[in-house]
Amino acid sequence: MALRHYTLDFNLSAPADCPSTVHGLQSIFQEQEMTETVHDTEGHGYLATFIGKNGRLVILRVHSHGLVTVDLQCCEGDNIAQVDNLLNALEKKLKSLLHGNIRRVKRLPALTRGAAVDRYWPTADGRLVEYDIDRVVYDEDSAYQNIKILHSQQFGNILILNGDVNLAESDLPYTQAIMGRGKENYTGKEVLILGGGDGGILAEAVKLKPEMITMVEISFQDAAFHVFLTHMRKACGSVLDKLKGDCYQVLVEDCVPVLKKYVEEGKTFDYVINDLTAVPISTAPEEDSTWEFLQLILDLSIKVLRPTGKYFTQGNCANLTEALALYEEQLGRLSCPVNFSKEVVCVPSYMELWVFYTVWKK
Amino acid sequence: MALRHYTLDFNLSAPADCPSTVHGLQSIFQEQEMTETVHDTEGHGYLATFIGKNGRLVILRVHSHGLVTVDLQCCEGDNIAQVDNLLNALEKKLKSLLHGNIRRVKRLPALTRGAAVDRYWPTADGRLVEYDIDRVVYDEDSAYQNIKILHSQQFGNILILNGDVNLAESDLPYTQAIMGRGKENYTGKEVLILGGGDGGILAEAVKLKPEMITMVEISFQDAAFHVFLTHMRKACGSVLDKLKGDCYQVLVEDCVPVLKKYVEEGKTFDYVINDLTAVPISTAPEEDSTWEFLQLILDLSIKVLRPTGKYFTQGNCANLTEALALYEEQLGRLSCPVNFSKEVVCVPSYMELWVFYTVWKK
Repeated sequence: MALRHYTLDFNLSAPADCPSTVHGLQSIFQEQEMTETVHDTEGHGYLATFIGKNGRLVILRVHSHGLVTVDLQCCEGDNIAQVDNLLNALEKKLKSLLHGNIRRVKRLPALTRGAAVDRYWPTADGRLVEYDIDRVVYDEDSAYQNIKILHSQQFGNILILNGDVNLAESDLPYTQAIMGRGKENYTGKEVLILGGGDGGILAEAVKLKPEMITMVEISFQDAAFHVFLTHMRKACGSVLDKLKGDCYQVLVEDCVPVLKKYVEEGKTFDYVINDLTAVPISTAPEEDSTWEFLQLILDLSIKVLRPTGKYFTQGNCANLTEALALYEEQLGRLSCPVNFSKEVVCVPSYMELWVFYTVWKK
Repeated sequence: MALRHYTLDFNLSAPADCPSTVHGLQSIFQEQEMTETVHDTEGHGYLATFIGKNGRLVILRVHSHGLVTVDLQCCEGDNIAQVDNLLNALEKKLKSLLHGNIRRVKRLPALTRGAAVDRYWPTADGRLVEYDIDRVVYDEDSAYQNIKILHSQQFGNILILNGDVNLAESDLPYTQAIMGRGKENYTGKEVLILGGGDGGILAEAVKLKPEMITMVEISFQDAAFHVFLTHMRKACGSVLDKLKGDCYQVLVEDCVPVLKKYVEEGKTFDYVINDLTAVPISTAPEEDSTWEFLQLILDLSIKVLRPTGKYFTQGNCANLTEALALYEEQLGRLSCPVNFSKEVVCVPSYMELWVFYTVWKK
C-alpha cells in the first residue's frame, strides 16, 4: 500500500499575515476532525501538523519569507474525491486569504511513494521525472547487473540496467545515432559491435548489407539474453533468435580479451560501435575505474579501426558538460591521434537530450 | 527563499518492527538536537515529527503495511552538505535496521518548492516532470493569455502559454510534423497557417518555395509578437521581421472571420495548417466550448481545402487515448466527409510523445 503525497505552494509578494492565514484555515481542519499540533520552530515561521482519519496528514507552514506550503499525505486506498475536496478547499481558502499578495500557486501531481510499480526514474542530470509505467515485466539480479523491464504506455518496454534507463522499444533514434545511420554506407563493410545486448544495433545493421558484423556481448552468459529476446522484441526483431547468421556472429565473451586478440592478429574493422553500459560490468583488475575502462576500450577500438574507419559511441546527457569535456580530453590522450564530431539527439524515453560521438584516426 | 523537500522511502517485504526502528534512529535526531513530537494516528502506523535548527523538519512514518517514509524539508539556503549528511545517516541506519526486509530504497531528487524559477511543468497526461530551467526570460499577461519564456539549458528558450509547454527552440520535430515536412511537396502551393505565432512553421515553409503562404495570427495584436521575435529566434529565424515577404503575408486577425470570408469568396488552399493553441483564445459567443471551437475551425478549414489538399494539425499526447478518440469521432461528423492519418512524434521539450493528424477530403 503506497502513500500519495500532495503539495500545494503559494509564492507571495510579501510575507503572509500569519495569524489571519492560520485562523482562516482552522474551520476546514475542524470540519475534517483533524487533530492539530503547533510546533515551535524557534523563529522559523509557523508550522502545524494535522492528523485526520485513515492516517491522513497535513503539514501547514507559513514561512517568514513570503511562502506558504501545504503537504497532504494519504494512503493510496484513501477516498480520492474526499482528498481532492480537502485540497480544493485549502487552495480556495488560501487564495481568498492571501488575495492580492499571490505571485504563484503551484499544485503538483501527487507523488506516489512506495508503490509496487516505481514510476520515478531521475535523468542523468539529476532531474525528477515520472514515467507512465504501468507494470513491471521483469526484475531480477543477474550475475552482472540488475535487469528490469518496465512497461510504459507510450514507450513500450523499457530496459533499466542497475537503475539507469537504457533503451525502450520506442528508441530507434538511439540505435540510429550510435551507428551513424543515414550518414554511413554499411554495404560490404566489416562491423564490430561492443555490447549492444538489446539487439537493436544488430537488427538495424543487418538490414544495411554489411560484409560481416561481429557482436561481443558478455551479458548473454546469463538471463539477460532471454530477457532481451522475450521483452525487447520491437528493438531486436528476430536477429537474436540465432547467434550466427549470413552476415553476423554474436560472441558471448568479455570484449577486452577479444579486442586484444584482434589487435594481436592485426584484424581490423570499418566500423566499431561501442554500446557497452556506461559503468563497466567486467571485473578484471586492470579496469578498476570507469575512466580507465573507457580509456582501455577506446584505445583498443581505435587500434582495430581501419585508416578510413569510424568509431561510434554514446557520450552522456547534453547537460553534463563537465563529463563530456572530460571524455573529449581523454580522446586527446589516445596512443593513436584522433579527430571526433558529436551530435545531440532526442531519444524518446530518456527525457533529456543525449550526445553521441563519432571518432576517426587523424 | 524556497524550500527543499527530500524524500527517502523504504519498501519492505513485511511490516517493520516499529519500536526497534524508531529507537534505532533516535540517536541521529538527538545528535542534530531536533525536537521530537510523536503523534497519535489512531492505529495508522507510527508518525513522528522532528524540528531542528534553521527550520529543518523531518517527518518519520513507519506504516503498518511494510513502508517506511522519511520527509526532510529545509530552507534553500540551508547547508546542503549538512542536510545530505543527515539524510545519508538516516538511510544508512534504516538500511541496517531493516536489513533483510528491504525490497526497495528510493531517494528522489529534492523537490524545490516556491523557487523564483519554477522548474516543474507537468505533462499533458498529468505526470510530474522537472525541467532544466535556469532562468525566466519573460513572464507577462497579454490581452489573450499568459506568456512565459523560460530558458532551458538543453532545449533553449521554451514558450509556455497559460501554463502549457508550447514550443522550445529545440522543437523543430514539432514544426516538421505539423507541416508534413518530408512527405509533402510545397513547391508552388498555396498554404494557410492558422496561428503559428512562434514563426516556426512560416520559417520552414518559406524554404520550400511555395506560391503563397497566408498566416493568420491574432496574438500579434499585442506583446506576443515582439516576444516571439526577440526570444524564439531559433524557431522563427528572420521571417517575422516583416509581416509581408515575397511568398508570404501575415494577417493579424482572428482566423474565424478570415476563414468565413475565404469560404464566401471561394478561395481555396493546398495546405491548411492549424497551429492554434489547444484552448481557443477568441471569445466570440459561437465558440463557447473548446470542442465547438475545434469543430468550427475544422469545418471551415476543410471548406477552403482544394480537392487534393491536406489539413494538418496537432492532436494531443499519445497517452490521452480518450481525447484522441473524441477528436477522431469529430472528424467523422464534419459537413464534408474526410479521411485522416496520424503520426506519433517525439517533440524534445514535451517529455511525452505527441500525435499529429493529416486530414483530407474523401
